[in-house]
Amino acid sequence: MEDVFQYIEGHSGMYLDWLIKACNQPSVSAQDRGMIEMKVLVKQFLEELGADVEEIETEGYPIIYGEMDAGKTKTLTFYNHYDVQPEDPLDEWVSRPFESTIRDGRLFARGSADNKGNLIARISAIHAYKEIYGGLPVNIKFIFEGEEEVGSPHLAFFANEHPDKLQTDGIIWEGGSRDAIDKRPHVGLGVKGICYVELTCQGAKYDLHSSEAAIIENPAWRLVWALNTIKNDQEKIMIDGFYDDIVPLSETDKNIIHTMNYNEDKIKEVYGIDGFLKEVTDYKLKERLTAEPTCTICGMESGYTRDGSKTVLPHLAKVKLDFRLVPGQSPDKIATLLRKHLDKHRFEDITIHETHGMVPFNTDPNHAFVDVVLNSVKEVYNEPPVILRNLAGSSPMSKMLEGTL
Amino acid sequence: MEDVFQYIEGHSGMYLDWLIKACNQPSVSAQDRGMIEMKVLVKQFLEELGADVEEIETEGYPIIYGEMDAGKTKTLTFYNHYDVQPEDPLDEWVSRPFESTIRDGRLFARGSADNKGNLIARISAIHAYKEIYGGLPVNIKFIFEGEEEVGSPHLAFFANEHPDKLQTDGIIWEGGSRDAIDKRPHVGLGVKGICYVELTCQGAKYDLHSSEAAIIENPAWRLVWALNTIKNDQEKIMIDGFYDDIVPLSETDKNIIHTMNYNEDKIKEVYGIDGFLKEVTDYKLKERLTAEPTCTICGMESGYTRDGSKTVLPHLAKVKLDFRLVPGQSPDKIATLLRKHLDKHRFEDITIHETHGMVPFNTDPNHAFVDVVLNSVKEVYNEPPVILRNLAGSSPMSKMLEGTL
Repeated sequence: MEDVFQYIEGHSGMYLDWLIKACNQPSVSAQDRGMIEMKVLVKQFLEELGADVEEIETEGYPIIYGEMDAGKTKTLTFYNHYDVQPEDPLDEWVSRPFESTIRDGRLFARGSADNKGNLIARISAIHAYKEIYGGLPVNIKFIFEGEEEVGSPHLAFFANEHPDKLQTDGIIWEGGSRDAIDKRPHVGLGVKGICYVELTCQGAKYDLHSSEAAIIENPAWRLVWALNTIKNDQEKIMIDGFYDDIVPLSETDKNIIHTMNYNEDKIKEVYGIDGFLKEVTDYKLKERLTAEPTCTICGMESGYTRDGSKTVLPHLAKVKLDFRLVPGQSPDKIATLLRKHLDKHRFEDITIHETHGMVPFNTDPNHAFVDVVLNSVKEVYNEPPVILRNLAGSSPMSKMLEGTL
Repeated sequence: MEDVFQYIEGHSGMYLDWLIKACNQPSVSAQDRGMIEMKVLVKQFLEELGADVEEIETEGYPIIYGEMDAGKTKTLTFYNHYDVQPEDPLDEWVSRPFESTIRDGRLFARGSADNKGNLIARISAIHAYKEIYGGLPVNIKFIFEGEEEVGSPHLAFFANEHPDKLQTDGIIWEGGSRDAIDKRPHVGLGVKGICYVELTCQGAKYDLHSSEAAIIENPAWRLVWALNTIKNDQEKIMIDGFYDDIVPLSETDKNIIHTMNYNEDKIKEVYGIDGFLKEVTDYKLKERLTAEPTCTICGMESGYTRDGSKTVLPHLAKVKLDFRLVPGQSPDKIATLLRKHLDKHRFEDITIHETHGMVPFNTDPNHAFVDVVLNSVKEVYNEPPVILRNLAGSSPMSKMLEGTL
């Protein structure tokens, strides 16, 4: 592989130009900005690489599918996305979001990390390999969607309609990360699921003077009491059945968690905290982070929230809750259990708006492909990766892969 | 008195002009706008009425004190204020806030109700009486402050420095109200006190991704749990000692509460509610409204509160709480008990910012002056007033009157 690495070094200007071209093209799916131009650009990259490219129509933005048949027995698939998050708040940008700028040896642009950097890196790697060896060691498939940043609403449709395109021996998901502190590369073997809901509670028709609170119900208090029944101060989620479907960790899972490194002192310093939740540490901390479900208040709001005092009885209270789910749990079931829970505790008046959900997804750690990936990472980075049984975050893997791998 | 009423009718244009002049002069104490001009105008009104006027310097805006010695044995005092609230939100004004406009027979301007309308009405009434009878039936004192809208920070100083100016047989406080539905005039025999605090809870140094909530403390949850210990879902305030100092209602108090009218059906319709807190009704409802303390969430905020979802672990959570207090309770004591309560429940990390406090104040319902007022109201309005043992709201009466009446 040394030849390939040298080729990449020698042509880094060209590969960087590819990345700059991708980053400078706005492609904000949430706002329908630049999506057609970006799709054309992505197709062009794949065609120039020598892939057979198909544009799969969906009711949203198309999925760009590419195939490079090297006549081999094994196939490797890459999932990436060509859309990016909106760039606001604009004031916070030091350079313009869609004009790539290099500062201190790093490239800054919206999407440079998520996910155009990864997309171009993969295309570049395959390009360099072909230049050196004239062919590929495996067949390659590319699945590039344009709606990851808006919840991948048509990825399941694609998977159902095109099972043949999902036939593969392994999929590398959209991106990678390195330890924020000691820089070792991560290999994640799955993602938590998510059930994101907004609860609202309504009192009177409009805000009243707070003196009326003696006789008029306050939705902010009702929401506080309802939340208090959902999770107690020991961090236990009190919804009946919440933990029932969780698949217990295997010995292999636990061993993987044991090997994960986590620099507790450094994280405490960076985040400015004295300790971790429930004072967990070491194995238990890593298990919570990667393999336990959560219930998080992501936002709450009621009444007067600006500076100073205003004597108001709010008419509305809202909270955004995010449940991170682990294998066995599903967002639909959790939303149903939450509704039952609220009803049981006489909070029938609290409304649940489900905003999005993703099923957790896990790779079998004993799958042969896992070893291939781990060894490749070790070879490239000259050190063993940090293996995460699960990422603490979520991603739409299950929408495409459920029942596939 | 019929002559006086007729005089007022005949000169209503002139009295209206006085009101317009007062309303068109901005006097926003919170923003130091127009205060000197307004003070000059108020002095001028009193001088033209024939009062001996003194400007009492304070560290804030002066108190304008006026005296009309009619050589009588009895003295009546009026408390009013010449400052107004800021006029925002400006967009919501149909006409300009400091340009009085008459629509549908009503005058609209900032301060027309609170409190320039009352201030000018009193001056006008005395003027008309003097025009008809040539003299006054009682001595009159005026206490006009310029800082009511910012918490009357120098009213206690005035009371301590000028006990002679407080010598009187009765004080009419700043304004009056009428039943919102059947329009009967109110006579209030006191006000609840208030202890307004803001609680803040801090987690990490900055907002984190919500996947970190598995191991990093969420200040929004801590605040929810803390609030849940402060008041339970039976509306009982759980702070040790909170109710201890409350002076029980006398039989007279209870009788007054019984006579108060309150149109429950109409209020339910206007506010768009199905029922009252804890399903109270009739006497119990009126007692809660006028004679029981409260603990109200006036505002709370944490994390992401705009539309849609954002997976964030907030680093800060805030709540604004207003305790309405009844005779026997004091804001200082309540703030102290709240601190003890939070510490006892291991919420030492939650900070209390005290924003303002007012001691409750009550008139002895058996005081002779009460009957004078009730009979006068009956004569003017041709119907008996609604007597409120206490207003549900608060006002700085105690700052001036504690130990006086």
